Amino acid sequence: MTDDDFLLLNPGPVPVREEVLAAMGEPMVSHRSADFEAVYERAQDGLDYVFECSTPDGESTSAGGTSIVLNGTATMGMEAAVANLVGDGDEVVSLVNGKFGRRFARIAERYTDEVVRVDADWGESIDVADVEAAVSDDTALVTTVHNETSTGLVNPTEAVGEVAAEHDARFVVDGVTCIGGAEFRVDDWNVDVALTDAQKAIETPPGISAMYLADGVEEHLDGESAPFYEDLDWHLRKAGQHQTPFTSAVPLFRALAVAVEGIESETMPTRIERHRRQAAAFREGFVGMGLDLFSNPDGESELSNTVTAIALPESIRGDADDFFDAVAERNVSISGGQAHLGGEIFRVSNMGSLSDEQILRGVRTVGEAMGDAGVDVDLEAGLDAAEAELE
Amino acid sequence: MTDDDFLLLNPGPVPVREEVLAAMGEPMVSHRSADFEAVYERAQDGLDYVFECSTPDGESTSAGGTSIVLNGTATMGMEAAVANLVGDGDEVVSLVNGKFGRRFARIAERYTDEVVRVDADWGESIDVADVEAAVSDDTALVTTVHNETSTGLVNPTEAVGEVAAEHDARFVVDGVTCIGGAEFRVDDWNVDVALTDAQKAIETPPGISAMYLADGVEEHLDGESAPFYEDLDWHLRKAGQHQTPFTSAVPLFRALAVAVEGIESETMPTRIERHRRQAAAFREGFVGMGLDLFSNPDGESELSNTVTAIALPESIRGDADDFFDAVAERNVSISGGQAHLGGEIFRVSNMGSLSDEQILRGVRTVGEAMGDAGVDVDLEAGLDAAEAELE
Repeated sequence: MTDDDFLLLNPGPVPVREEVLAAMGEPMVSHRSADFEAVYERAQDGLDYVFECSTPDGESTSAGGTSIVLNGTATMGMEAAVANLVGDGDEVVSLVNGKFGRRFARIAERYTDEVVRVDADWGESIDVADVEAAVSDDTALVTTVHNETSTGLVNPTEAVGEVAAEHDARFVVDGVTCIGGAEFRVDDWNVDVALTDAQKAIETPPGISAMYLADGVEEHLDGESAPFYEDLDWHLRKAGQHQTPFTSAVPLFRALAVAVEGIESETMPTRIERHRRQAAAFREGFVGMGLDLFSNPDGESELSNTVTAIALPESIRGDADDFFDAVAERNVSISGGQAHLGGEIFRVSNMGSLSDEQILRGVRTVGEAMGDAGVDVDLEAGLDAAEAELE
Repeated sequence: MTDDDFLLLNPGPVPVREEVLAAMGEPMVSHRSADFEAVYERAQDGLDYVFECSTPDGESTSAGGTSIVLNGTATMGMEAAVANLVGDGDEVVSLVNGKFGRRFARIAERYTDEVVRVDADWGESIDVADVEAAVSDDTALVTTVHNETSTGLVNPTEAVGEVAAEHDARFVVDGVTCIGGAEFRVDDWNVDVALTDAQKAIETPPGISAMYLADGVEEHLDGESAPFYEDLDWHLRKAGQHQTPFTSAVPLFRALAVAVEGIESETMPTRIERHRRQAAAFREGFVGMGLDLFSNPDGESELSNTVTAIALPESIRGDADDFFDAVAERNVSISGGQAHLGGEIFRVSNMGSLSDEQILRGVRTVGEAMGDAGVDVDLEAGLDAAEAELE
């Protein structure tokens, strides 16, 4: 691996192993064949492991549930969860402190007029007291984004889940950019539906996503209230036969089966530790060279172990093309800020089984590109700090 | 190519060329990169050709329109078209003489209470007089399936489009299992939205689909009335930048770009003629050996040039496992009937750039399997009749 190789550090799609890419090249089969059903079953078995055992000690945190694969990205999963669990007039409480939290609220507004947003500035923590004030026995559903990709902040899912459970509200959690790389606890956090995407910490090409329905939530589903393509009663019925209601994206399901088997081989505890260590190296590397973290967690929030958001220095804020161009010239792909954070921050991901050398290359690339853009950073101090975390 | 090779004759997913499969194996890039935008633009250019020039002489039948790619199969496209064009209370007239026509009606029923079905028995022709009686100036939308995959019948799209246009109703046409392999005329048939799927005559692996919006229909779209994931205003806006609103299925878009470029190289007139000739060979082959076609076109209907449906002989109807097993033992995959046609018919496709030898192998396989199942057929007569069509 030389510095000339393309290095993908976006928070999705992430780099994918050769073995996973190769799985897509097999000749086509029918999505109603036994061949395909075996692929779907392998994907479900691996997803069950990932959804249930994402703990530092590998212990299961779910008394039972069902993994299903959706032929659409995680936004479709977010919509499917909301649309099957609420009807017009039902109250939804949506936590919003980033782009994906806002997306959940916007989706909910298509299905009910009663959406209560609990807001915080993007990059700031949600106040659990605000959630307590918003959720009542009238609340049908609470939505949150566990790992907010737009800001690199982990929201207080455990505490919010307790509030939801106290009021017998369903709890849907977007774990899209953390599940497969970070701790996630289904029953301990009172999660009814957990969502992830193939193209994030699961390390599969984009196009499909996965959902875990904890036991019992199926009683609350109403597939008829949802879009036809997102009817979860139908999806669950077909998933029992290792099929999807409509045609499946056969190559992507094959890739997913290989990818989740890889996760099971590596084990979740090893992956969680790797992501924790590499995210710390990114953070310490950037801070060590003189940059500032964007997010300000307090209370029950934390910084993400899969996505790092850094404030662009004052001197290039709002006009950072030179910086981003200098990164791209080095054959590295990173992300800017989304929505009103465009021009305010940059973001890197450590999902996708990166080597420690690739993490250091990311730190070095950002430091050099800052220099090219006229920002004075101490690259060596940053690299030293990152290396110290990786040891 | 030996008889031991797996031969996929299902009406989707269809066999895919090596070059198309190989395109999926490239390393991942961001769906917001210039690299990806170039892929999407290639796919759009090729789709423009297919949607606009599907004529025996290659002439365009559209004064203009926009091709977009959806990150979901054609059922998502069917729903997106309906949901963006009607709101509650709007009247939809849906033509139903097969599974996919019924699907359109069921989708429409999720968006309005005013769905009028124009029915015919599955496999029988829709009576255009019934359509004339059903459509009025109050009709917002007419839906039809041009090539009904479940029965192998081509519906009278031109005549129905005239009725829709007379009443200024929008006209949405499912061309899923014909576009790319058969004649399709946008303006001549007054089509506002045409749908196809990657995995049918476009010869791409399943998981994504495409839509052609004729110029002017955008004024009638209301993305807010549709599911969040299917908001066509948003899709159109992003398609102008060669992007999708959410993450794109990068490998499948790459495959699609290669596949549609292959169609452009072969040209639509050549493809239409090939599909016409090979479908005739299937029909004559099966009839020649003593089997009966399932569909009974009359009036303005025709038999399909991409999908052939054959009635199972009386002696094995309802219990045709021996026949289907004998086909599978020969390493060939065909389809049974769907919904209430299960046990009544079998179906084969000639989509997917099959060779004439593969068509003849399909005829021979069915004839031999009929023999194994105790049905007396004249295989040699069938093969002779098929060969005569292929000459």
